[in-house]
Amino acid sequence: MARNVHIVCGLDPGLRITGYGVLRVDNGEDTVQVVDAGVIRCSTHESLALRLAELAAGVDEVLDEHDVDTVAVEQIYSHYQRPRTAILMAHARGVLLLEAARRECRILHLPSTTVKRHLTGSGRASKEQMQAAVANALSLDALPEPPDVADALAVALCAVGVMQHPARIAPVNDDLLTQ
Amino acid sequence: MARNVHIVCGLDPGLRITGYGVLRVDNGEDTVQVVDAGVIRCSTHESLALRLAELAAGVDEVLDEHDVDTVAVEQIYSHYQRPRTAILMAHARGVLLLEAARRECRILHLPSTTVKRHLTGSGRASKEQMQAAVANALSLDALPEPPDVADALAVALCAVGVMQHPARIAPVNDDLLTQ
Repeated sequence: MARNVHIVCGLDPGLRITGYGVLRVDNGEDTVQVVDAGVIRCSTHESLALRLAELAAGVDEVLDEHDVDTVAVEQIYSHYQRPRTAILMAHARGVLLLEAARRECRILHLPSTTVKRHLTGSGRASKEQMQAAVANALSLDALPEPPDVADALAVALCAVGVMQHPARIAPVNDDLLTQ
Repeated sequence: MARNVHIVCGLDPGLRITGYGVLRVDNGEDTVQVVDAGVIRCSTHESLALRLAELAAGVDEVLDEHDVDTVAVEQIYSHYQRPRTAILMAHARGVLLLEAARRECRILHLPSTTVKRHLTGSGRASKEQMQAAVANALSLDALPEPPDVADALAVALCAVGVMQHPARIAPVNDDLLTQ
C-alpha cells in the first residue's frame, strides 16, 4: 500500500439516521483504532430535500474533521422486500457517495453478506452477533449503540480487511448493485 | 404570488442522461419562455460516485447560470417494474434534490400522471404525445430531442401550472414517494 496510515469511514445510510464509524489504520504498526463513531440525524418533519441537505452537512463534517481517505458503504440490493425503503435509502446513499467523490476518497461498495462473513464467519449473522463481533474486533468496552453505529463500524472493518487482503475478500469495487 | 417572475427548472434524473428545461415565467405579462434546455451526460465508464459528482457539477451550472428559484422533479414510484433502475435513478435524484435544497430553491415533486394529464389531458399519454404537447405549449419549431429534454420541459410546465393554479392540480409538494 502506498500510504502506511489510512482513515477509513464506514457509513450506514438512512434518511432518519445515518451511522458512521471512522477507523485509523496503521499498517506499519498493524493497528486499527476507532477515531470517531456516531449517527447523523435528519429532522423527520422536514422535506426530503432538506433532509438530504442535513445529511450532506453532517457527513461533510465527519469526512473533513478526520481527513478521511476511504469511504465504505454497503451495496443496495434490488430485490429488497420494501422497495419504497430502498428507494428512499438510495437518495441518501447518492448524497453520501457524492460528498465522498468530491473529496476524492477511495470508495468501496461491500455486499452485506461479505461484511457479515468478514466479521462473524457467517453471511447471515444477526444484528446482535454483529454488534458483539464489532465490539470484540475493536476491543470496545460496550456494544456499539444504536445498531446503525455497529453497522457502520462493521462496514469500515470489512473495508480495512479488503484493503489489507484484497485477494481474500472478493468481490469489491463493483459499485453496480447486487442483483 | 410574491414574485412576479420565476425561473423554473424541470429535471428528468438519470445516471446516464439527465434532462433539464429552464422556463422563465412572467406572471405580470402572462408569458412562459424557454430559457435553456438540454441534457447533462455522465461518463458511463466511470464509477457510480464519480458519475454523481459529474451530475452535481452539471446541475449546479444550470441552477447558477439561470438563477433558478424553483425546481420540479417527477416522483419515483416504488412499484417500478425495474427496481434496479429505480434505485440507481434515486441516487441521481438525491443528488439533484441536494443541490436544489442547498440553493434554497422551492422544490415540487410531481406524479408523472399529473404531468401527463396537465400537458395532454390524459395520465397515460405516450412519449410522442408528450413531445408534441410540449412543443405546442411552448411554440417550439421542432419536437424537443432527446425525449429526456421533453420530459424535463413537461415537468417544468406542470410546475408552472401548479404555481399559477395550486388548487386545480393536486396533490403536490408531497415529496414522499407515490405508493
